[in-house]
Amino acid sequence: MALQTPIEYDQASPVVRAVYDDIMVTRKTDWVNNFWKVLAHHPETLQRIWSNIKQVMGNGALDPLTKELIYVAVSITNNCNYCIASHTAGAKAKGMTDEQLGELLAVIGLANETNRLAIGYGVPVDERFIAS
Amino acid sequence: MALQTPIEYDQASPVVRAVYDDIMVTRKTDWVNNFWKVLAHHPETLQRIWSNIKQVMGNGALDPLTKELIYVAVSITNNCNYCIASHTAGAKAKGMTDEQLGELLAVIGLANETNRLAIGYGVPVDERFIAS
Amino acid sequence: MALQTPIEYDQASPVVRAVYDDIMVTRKTDWVNNFWKVLAHHPETLQRIWSNIKQVMGNGALDPLTKELIYVAVSITNNCNYCIASHTAGAKAKGMTDEQLGELLAVIGLANETNRLAIGYGVPVDERFIAS
Amino acid sequence: MALQTPIEYDQASPVVRAVYDDIMVTRKTDWVNNFWKVLAHHPETLQRIWSNIKQVMGNGALDPLTKELIYVAVSITNNCNYCIASHTAGAKAKGMTDEQLGELLAVIGLANETNRLAIGYGVPVDERFIAS
Amino acid sequence: MALQTPIEYDQASPVVRAVYDDIMVTRKTDWVNNFWKVLAHHPETLQRIWSNIKQVMGNGALDPLTKELIYVAVSITNNCNYCIASHTAGAKAKGMTDEQLGELLAVIGLANETNRLAIGYGVPVDERFIAS
Amino acid sequence: MALQTPIEYDQASPVVRAVYDDIMVTRKTDWVNNFWKVLAHHPETLQRIWSNIKQVMGNGALDPLTKELIYVAVSITNNCNYCIASHTAGAKAKGMTDEQLGELLAVIGLANETNRLAIGYGVPVDERFIAS
Repeated sequence: MALQTPIEYDQASPVVRAVYDDIMVTRKTDWVNNFWKVLAHHPETLQRIWSNIKQVMGNGALDPLTKELIYVAVSITNNCNYCIASHTAGAKAKGMTDEQLGELLAVIGLANETNRLAIGYGVPVDERFIAS
Repeated sequence: MALQTPIEYDQASPVVRAVYDDIMVTRKTDWVNNFWKVLAHHPETLQRIWSNIKQVMGNGALDPLTKELIYVAVSITNNCNYCIASHTAGAKAKGMTDEQLGELLAVIGLANETNRLAIGYGVPVDERFIAS
Repeated sequence: MALQTPIEYDQASPVVRAVYDDIMVTRKTDWVNNFWKVLAHHPETLQRIWSNIKQVMGNGALDPLTKELIYVAVSITNNCNYCIASHTAGAKAKGMTDEQLGELLAVIGLANETNRLAIGYGVPVDERFIAS
Repeated sequence: MALQTPIEYDQASPVVRAVYDDIMVTRKTDWVNNFWKVLAHHPETLQRIWSNIKQVMGNGALDPLTKELIYVAVSITNNCNYCIASHTAGAKAKGMTDEQLGELLAVIGLANETNRLAIGYGVPVDERFIAS
Repeated sequence: MALQTPIEYDQASPVVRAVYDDIMVTRKTDWVNNFWKVLAHHPETLQRIWSNIKQVMGNGALDPLTKELIYVAVSITNNCNYCIASHTAGAKAKGMTDEQLGELLAVIGLANETNRLAIGYGVPVDERFIAS
Repeated sequence: MALQTPIEYDQASPVVRAVYDDIMVTRKTDWVNNFWKVLAHHPETLQRIWSNIKQVMGNGALDPLTKELIYVAVSITNNCNYCIASHTAGAKAKGMTDEQLGELLAVIGLANETNRLAIGYGVPVDERFIAS
């Protein structure tokens, strides 16, 4: 393991190709990124995760761009290089401007700082927050 | 330490009171939450962090509600109870609905899952993401 | 599990008592904190970890107080309540002042912020740092 | 994104150059490391973070070398390669010996281990630590 | 938010009850733990996560007890109290002995230590591991 | 620092060589992986960690393959590339199949997701789990 080789469309089984096809149709694009081509080593995981992504990341009470920003926030906090690259690209494709990227990173950085201050000082939760 | 006692307004030094006053004026409210009352044990930190929060969390290219959602995403990923409670309350005060909260948590959960799949499988970053 | 009951000296096996005795002699104190009393459920772990702590945390090229500050920094970053409480107490016992505690937390908070900015922006490592 | 191109002095705006100049004057050096050159893509963040670093990392109740060691401890726990490289270099520049580096890493490693033992066993916080 | 009230069977909608029923039938038990009763606030998430758990945690190439041990390892590393309590109970119900629990925690602790030593020292990956 | 050069057998001191020899004898192999060759920069750490690994990772109430799977689970959650590579290789050497690897990663991913859902929703621990 470590670096798993992506499985290209030509090499893929019919089950895997069906997911690749659905990804391209759903995203109105003609390529599939490496995340899916590597998950294809375990087709059950490929199908399950794609099904989850379709359900969770579509338009809903939150718009798709906001969901991408949240994804980037988690990915930076967890230090996942692949995910930072793919979801930053996803956010840009959905309209994120350079200024919004700058503010996104500023919020992520500051949240990581104040998280540790609250944890380190053991700040007791305010009654009003519990009630809310 | 561990649980530091919040410093109430009546006990606070003039430097600390000035920050409390600015918090209440800026937020158009009549109370200060425990995070600030505990940071008051180190007034330089209290002043510095409040100044950072004012600069980062105000209206900009991203709206204040979106910034709160990002804050919640980081806080849940880091497991900071106080920050989850305070920024969820902050998001609700800025208009977050229950349905939006449900979607926010769904995105955060799924991002944490796919982050580890990308890391565990060692997915190579696509050329297109590097170029973008 | 979840909360394991601490094993008190009177209930402990000879192997466990021998570790408790060595902890009290080494630390010149008459009590043992709960961390060790809970590890006692797996005596091999109790012996192994105490042996590691004695080797690592004693005086060396770094003084014991500096080592406690480093321990607190890790514990806050990992959000371990027990460890924050015990190693903050340990640092105070070794002379940490309130002002030093305030600065310690300020550095920990800021490091957590800039860590995520460096990760999020994908800052390339400078040649000079690689060479050093 | 992912890897942002550092902005060199010649390409930088007057606002950015002013920060670079202050970094070089404050540090008595003739170069600026990539962290700042990448933050320069969002000048407000560049100014804010540099201002924070100057306030937090200078001499105080804790000496600058101790602060660097704490920074390294956080950066290793968070797995920030850039930050590990830059703050290890910073610690060496402030006098850290190879033996101190060895002990620093030993403490960081052991703290990460005992953090998980305390969390996994659910060790209850001792009364004496709460009182202190 | 913060602490969400669990939704009991009597208060639940038909969609939610159907999931509760399936949980009890699948697990051959007469109760549902709080995790599901809280996810019920967002029925799409309740259904999706239960469906994922059924697919992933059943018998396969790895046996159910081994899967619970892996779940505990992740939950302790992430410091999720609820998950540690529920999956330790799950492992015990599947036959984990006290001695196995002790060894499980020893491996988790040591892995967290050596992870940071490898990260901190920047150990280069061996050719043989890449090839394998 | 950052990338420390591995210390080869020919360059090593007698104390370091003795550990290398014991590693090769214990593992019935003729090579030593880079982790140990880098720890050799601080011989006390080399000896201590090897002694811990021998005690913890050998056969016991849990078999060596299960212990490797747990090690991989922690390493992926912490994002330690070296450790993922070395312990995945270790698991394969102890008999892990491709299908088991797929299931291992599926459990790790899902656990990371539900950890954040439990944390984010603040799920209260069930009485039955506390009692168990």
